[in-house]
Amino acid sequence: MKSITLLLVGVAILAGIVAFTAPASLHADDSTAPIFVTKIPPGYRDWKLVSVAHEEGNLHSIGAVLGNDVAIKAYRDGKLPFPDGTIIAALHYSHVPSAENNKVFGQAQSFVAGSATNIQFMVKDSTKYAATGGWGFATFVDGKPAAAASMKSCFPCHNQAKATDLVFTRYAP
Amino acid sequence: MKSITLLLVGVAILAGIVAFTAPASLHADDSTAPIFVTKIPPGYRDWKLVSVAHEEGNLHSIGAVLGNDVAIKAYRDGKLPFPDGTIIAALHYSHVPSAENNKVFGQAQSFVAGSATNIQFMVKDSTKYAATGGWGFATFVDGKPAAAASMKSCFPCHNQAKATDLVFTRYAP
Repeated sequence: MKSITLLLVGVAILAGIVAFTAPASLHADDSTAPIFVTKIPPGYRDWKLVSVAHEEGNLHSIGAVLGNDVAIKAYRDGKLPFPDGTIIAALHYSHVPSAENNKVFGQAQSFVAGSATNIQFMVKDSTKYAATGGWGFATFVDGKPAAAASMKSCFPCHNQAKATDLVFTRYAP
Repeated sequence: MKSITLLLVGVAILAGIVAFTAPASLHADDSTAPIFVTKIPPGYRDWKLVSVAHEEGNLHSIGAVLGNDVAIKAYRDGKLPFPDGTIIAALHYSHVPSAENNKVFGQAQSFVAGSATNIQFMVKDSTKYAATGGWGFATFVDGKPAAAASMKSCFPCHNQAKATDLVFTRYAP
């Protein structure tokens, strides 16, 4: 009776390990697995500033990178990797000249945020997103998640920033 | 005796009115009056995002504009003029190319925040700063207030944005 109980416990433990590791293995092998974030994290517009950025080329955007409290604490403490619960938001806008500002400056030099182009998120959950470096990626355009096909490049691109836990943006003073 | 008391009260009231209005009159007539903010508002780095901006020309900067809770509420409510207690912060950084990002993108397109160039504040106090449209202006470089002479252009420049209560930056969605 005692040995049967131990056997059952052993099976249960093994089953638990298999259940725990299976999703990661599936994700690693199956590029169609749903590893993307499809819901906008609430309250992101109130988060604190990480930094700003300007992209030319096809993007032609100006953006602000914000972080939730977990993200900001990790940034300020200089701790890597980012802990589970970290969410980083990139708010992108079209990079447009400001006629009003240029008039005051007396020359064309001022660019401001035009309409929103997209909002992107990186959500750290080392279990749920184990197959993509612990990060779930998201892009929202007009509040709707971008097509899954367009999201396949997120991880391979961010994976080139391994030294900073797949995050490109540095904290601005 | 009664008339002497009344006279004294009258003089006191008059003195009060003179004392109250004198600073504003002095400011309007005397460009050397200390109308500038010389202390960094505490906690500004934790404030919420208003928008982002990029200046070329001599400035060559990328910046984030943040607002304290009074400022953010006024922006979101679309209320003008901004109420007393509003503080708007502009965090400016050098606009520098990111070699790391450009390598990943495969082309030179990415600009990020370099070192901090200055931090500017606009503080709304319609009494204290009555002579400059109700706004006190501040510029800090490396934590120290900029020379008063360099601050004389703040008000005449911002005063060209009368329709938006002297504030250039619009709230980004």
